[in-house]
Amino acid sequence: MKAARYYGPGDIRIDDIPEPVPKPGQVKIKVRSIAVCGSDLHAYLMLLWVSPVNEPNSITKEKLPVGIGHEFSGTIVDLGEDVDISHFSVGQHVVVEPLISCMSDYCASCSAGRRNVCPRMNFIGFAGWGGGMAEYITVDQELVHDLPPQIPLEIGAMMEPLAVGWHAVNRSEFKSGDNVLVVGAGPIGLLLIKVLQARGAAWVGVSEPANARRELALTLGANEVYNPLTANVSEEVRRVTDGIGADVVFECSGIPAGLDTAIQAVRARGNIMNVSVWENPPAFDVNHLMAREASFTAVIGYESRVFPELLKAVGEGKLDGIEPLITRKIALKDVVQKGFMTLLQEKETQIKILVQP
Amino acid sequence: MKAARYYGPGDIRIDDIPEPVPKPGQVKIKVRSIAVCGSDLHAYLMLLWVSPVNEPNSITKEKLPVGIGHEFSGTIVDLGEDVDISHFSVGQHVVVEPLISCMSDYCASCSAGRRNVCPRMNFIGFAGWGGGMAEYITVDQELVHDLPPQIPLEIGAMMEPLAVGWHAVNRSEFKSGDNVLVVGAGPIGLLLIKVLQARGAAWVGVSEPANARRELALTLGANEVYNPLTANVSEEVRRVTDGIGADVVFECSGIPAGLDTAIQAVRARGNIMNVSVWENPPAFDVNHLMAREASFTAVIGYESRVFPELLKAVGEGKLDGIEPLITRKIALKDVVQKGFMTLLQEKETQIKILVQP
Repeated sequence: MKAARYYGPGDIRIDDIPEPVPKPGQVKIKVRSIAVCGSDLHAYLMLLWVSPVNEPNSITKEKLPVGIGHEFSGTIVDLGEDVDISHFSVGQHVVVEPLISCMSDYCASCSAGRRNVCPRMNFIGFAGWGGGMAEYITVDQELVHDLPPQIPLEIGAMMEPLAVGWHAVNRSEFKSGDNVLVVGAGPIGLLLIKVLQARGAAWVGVSEPANARRELALTLGANEVYNPLTANVSEEVRRVTDGIGADVVFECSGIPAGLDTAIQAVRARGNIMNVSVWENPPAFDVNHLMAREASFTAVIGYESRVFPELLKAVGEGKLDGIEPLITRKIALKDVVQKGFMTLLQEKETQIKILVQP
Repeated sequence: MKAARYYGPGDIRIDDIPEPVPKPGQVKIKVRSIAVCGSDLHAYLMLLWVSPVNEPNSITKEKLPVGIGHEFSGTIVDLGEDVDISHFSVGQHVVVEPLISCMSDYCASCSAGRRNVCPRMNFIGFAGWGGGMAEYITVDQELVHDLPPQIPLEIGAMMEPLAVGWHAVNRSEFKSGDNVLVVGAGPIGLLLIKVLQARGAAWVGVSEPANARRELALTLGANEVYNPLTANVSEEVRRVTDGIGADVVFECSGIPAGLDTAIQAVRARGNIMNVSVWENPPAFDVNHLMAREASFTAVIGYESRVFPELLKAVGEGKLDGIEPLITRKIALKDVVQKGFMTLLQEKETQIKILVQP
């Protein structure tokens, strides 16, 4: 079969490799759609800590090259031994929770359903066990979730980034009725608008310099959008919130100016939730955080409870309307040129590019 | 009377000024002991945002020069009209909660007992209403608290920094039974050891490069002390905590290396509580915080509930043994030379210098 594999920065190849065979407890999935993630793009530009370069990953026992891609949906085409057939069957539409973790009973994180903070945590699509940018992948049944029947399979490719947003909201101090600012309208920032509205936000403002992304933020349901290059975002937020400031700010820009906006816009005793991965440690205005006694928290991935919670809400139609994030669909053979390169060249207008293997 | 007054960086003078007369609702206090605070020292070196230089402070209506000093104890010598005489009387030993705030019923912070996060929050001893480095001061009765009778008046001068520590513990995620790391054994770090032990910490480790301060940390009850210049503090903490890391880390160093230690030593889902004031925004390793999903919070001053809670615990003997922090006692006339200059020159060995007006 054809599979995109990551050999290192700037080196992703479409290889011809054997179709994977499901081991006991695994299902084999024919991939329908897979989205290129910002982290994939990061890995294309620079080596990430998640990549096993010299030593094999301690859990997957694989090192580069490895399959790439972790935001995907597909159809079950085969079941390994010992798969729970009361739950899984051939033809079923599924999405995958692509976390790798030690799963030891002795791991305080894994044994509590917090696989995302396991010290050995990693991702399918970065550290082995195949990747979603391939015709087929085999996955442990524990990581496979039903896509609600009324949701198109290609929308299923966005369940993983939605799960990141859902988990960020879970772990933040957000409560229904809150006023929220989202800083940065990349894919995660845009999906967060939907999640926040679904979970009862009173008001969602978005700070984003790119015109096309501000438009999309409005389409997805933002109450107000601001261009931080021309507006004083924190003053605008205070104007809307009776001078108080945002209850929670989601920092999704990953740039120092965005972090400053977050610190300035949050209310006294409010919460800043960082969902960004940073290329370099930003200068952090602790004194300003201190004067408001605000908190700064950060998340990675999702707890085990998140995919089931999210997919229930998706099945109830609470997150309808995310199709506009899909800005292009391409074939697997074009993933570098029309996927990665396009995302780098058309930063402001491309959001989610779907690969259809 | 004699009073130390702050004219600006490098310029503190002992002036002869009229004794203050208590207004309605105020008590007049003869100051017994006042400690030089790290913030006083900062103000001596550089202009702080709290100082009203060109415009009068919006609450006190005063601008420089203003009285300096906010960590003090004394004896009531006069009562203004309308003072609650069922509570206050001449001869009483008291300490002062030196917060200035708007106290408006419309202020979301002040009306909830969170005067420390009032947008107009400031301090007696920086922005007017007199300072503690004087023979007398008049203070609104709401800010005056009884010192428990068995506590020597000069120890009373340390109730204010103790309140900072007590509040930091209140606002942190600390629970009885936790393992805690304190980074930086300055006055606040050292007092935090006492507060944490009083509140049921299972283990308190301290990271501090100065030998004399590490010794003092042990005297105050630290379970282990580490020199970050020679030890890998986060590894040591993990060794003591079965590989898990500290439940809560109190960052009291105000230097980037200390913040890095805090981020490295905290456990997954743990909490870093910043009590430091920063001269410059430090580079912040957000990705490392993210990989543990830890939280970073910051505090300033104390809520209205803190002095009563603290003084009750002090009255019960739970914070006995802080005398070793007093490393020198001086007269008011010597405050610059033997106070501020000594603290700057003997950084490692001087902790709390008490001025006795």
